[in-house]
Amino acid sequence: MNHPSPDSRIRPVSWVNGVVEMLDQRLLPEQETYVRLQTSHEIAGAIHDMVVRGAPAIGIAAAYGVVLAVRQVINAGSADWQTAIEPLMQQLAEARPTAVNLHWAITRMRRRFTEVTDDPEAGLLAEARAIQAEDVEANRRMGELGAAVIGRVDAVLTHCNAGALATGGYGTALGVVRSLYAKQHLAMVYACETRPWLQGSRLTAWELSIDQIPVTLIADSVAATLMQAGKISWVIVGADRIAANGDVANKIGTYAHAVCARHPRHHGVRFMVVAPTSTFDPQTASGKQIPIEVRDGRELTHFRGRPIAPVAAHSHNPVFDVTPADLIDCIVTEKGVIQRPDQAKIQALLAR
Amino acid sequence: MNHPSPDSRIRPVSWVNGVVEMLDQRLLPEQETYVRLQTSHEIAGAIHDMVVRGAPAIGIAAAYGVVLAVRQVINAGSADWQTAIEPLMQQLAEARPTAVNLHWAITRMRRRFTEVTDDPEAGLLAEARAIQAEDVEANRRMGELGAAVIGRVDAVLTHCNAGALATGGYGTALGVVRSLYAKQHLAMVYACETRPWLQGSRLTAWELSIDQIPVTLIADSVAATLMQAGKISWVIVGADRIAANGDVANKIGTYAHAVCARHPRHHGVRFMVVAPTSTFDPQTASGKQIPIEVRDGRELTHFRGRPIAPVAAHSHNPVFDVTPADLIDCIVTEKGVIQRPDQAKIQALLAR
Repeated sequence: MNHPSPDSRIRPVSWVNGVVEMLDQRLLPEQETYVRLQTSHEIAGAIHDMVVRGAPAIGIAAAYGVVLAVRQVINAGSADWQTAIEPLMQQLAEARPTAVNLHWAITRMRRRFTEVTDDPEAGLLAEARAIQAEDVEANRRMGELGAAVIGRVDAVLTHCNAGALATGGYGTALGVVRSLYAKQHLAMVYACETRPWLQGSRLTAWELSIDQIPVTLIADSVAATLMQAGKISWVIVGADRIAANGDVANKIGTYAHAVCARHPRHHGVRFMVVAPTSTFDPQTASGKQIPIEVRDGRELTHFRGRPIAPVAAHSHNPVFDVTPADLIDCIVTEKGVIQRPDQAKIQALLAR
Repeated sequence: MNHPSPDSRIRPVSWVNGVVEMLDQRLLPEQETYVRLQTSHEIAGAIHDMVVRGAPAIGIAAAYGVVLAVRQVINAGSADWQTAIEPLMQQLAEARPTAVNLHWAITRMRRRFTEVTDDPEAGLLAEARAIQAEDVEANRRMGELGAAVIGRVDAVLTHCNAGALATGGYGTALGVVRSLYAKQHLAMVYACETRPWLQGSRLTAWELSIDQIPVTLIADSVAATLMQAGKISWVIVGADRIAANGDVANKIGTYAHAVCARHPRHHGVRFMVVAPTSTFDPQTASGKQIPIEVRDGRELTHFRGRPIAPVAAHSHNPVFDVTPADLIDCIVTEKGVIQRPDQAKIQALLAR
């Protein structure tokens, strides 16, 4: 189960010979380099530094991080490993603030603690592997469900990377794209470059090129003009957290696309969010309560270490935004599709 | 009159000792390098390659280019310089397609041909200098008019660079910003970085920093979230061409800002276009007829010569978009302010 998807050779995170192997996404597309991580501290650092990114992939990485943490505290001779592990769990949970899958995965791992007392590392490794396998399975299911909603179209737009690189290995938004393309129901994917980190240029274009799915790269600000010109039918994105009322936190830029898609001039451009149920956060009432990560302004003012703005320039670099539920046509989950999402429909779906 | 503005040391284009001196805007903010151009061919190349950019500055550069062209054909011994110069004029006119100021300046220079027969170079140089001086004067007037419309605000948003660097030396959108700031009616300018060429990071942040006007740099996609959060009152932009009906061609990204500003959730965000009357093109009925320049995709897929996307990736790099007149609250010109622009109001203003 190291290679999570027979359809894609891309595996952002996997457990190999007792360590975590991660594709360093900071180096794509120029280099395809895998790093080996042996401690939960290294996993937390890799999540924070965006060696791995994408809400589901972060959750999977954190689950493997818990396995490493257990090994560490047991090897250190802790009498009570379940207590000793807490600071390490906390560090993993705090590695990035917005994606709720991180907390979801850690909570799920913790629930297994009392059942794995004979061989905690083996028992928890099985759980982490299950999380990854279920994520891929959920992706495939969402791909089918989303493709069925869309039918046959010429072109869709996606933002950031919600693909194999962001998940166990198939993709949420790009899972729908893969399913559409496999059915010959899609001719072109427009990928926003996604400033400042360029997930679209570096990751989505790379990932789709490998799978030979036609992709055209655009500046984020070109999206609205494609809608204006009637070039795209759907915007398809992933999510980092979905509040109880259906508000969606996702990569910065998503909100503007949603506003433009719903503009009266853009009749026919619809807006789809694709995310596993682990992305829902029923404890967060609305998008207003979702913590939005603000990263170092150097992501904006520098490029590969060299300044692209005056040294003294101030900058503001929030990396997520919140799209209100009423701008979303549908949320596709592995449990089904929610049309026109609201709190009641979400509660009903999660209770299935 | 070499230094067009006593308020700003920035002069993107000037005539110095018989040649054109241009600040190479491709090298900002790291280097402030001036190049000296001696032929109209060099001017056309500099416009095409974006050594100089910004609709009014392009017009001024082309006007000086005509002076150089006259010198060239006269030095070459042409019996009929007015005929011999035509291919050079044509090359200048075709250097970039979207900004109409280029054509406007060339047409204005041509109108002087029959009056400057004694010393064509000196007569036309006087005209080119007049174009630049009038542009700065128009900028100052627009700065005052725009500031009066806005009153007192905390923050405004601007896109691309419509400043001293884009004009004779004061600015259209940034002229309004300068006037507001001088009156202590403005606390912060949010500048969109403006992909792919980064006019916001490289030029606007640099220009405002020099004048000690507080500026915060953001990714283009952050603009909508600032509107969502109630952080900005006005979007202020320049224009490259304004059609007879008031549709505005401007830097790619402008249209999305206009759509978001007018979104029902953003009550209070208003949208101002600042442009001299030379930017109006009464011969173009609507935005649909404005030619939109599509530049080399390498501006998007490469950065400083190094790839930031897979080598095989397709890209689409239109560098302007069209904002329909009905999304614009007002157009500020040196002849006055047009509220809720339409064809009749524009005709009336241009006839003044």
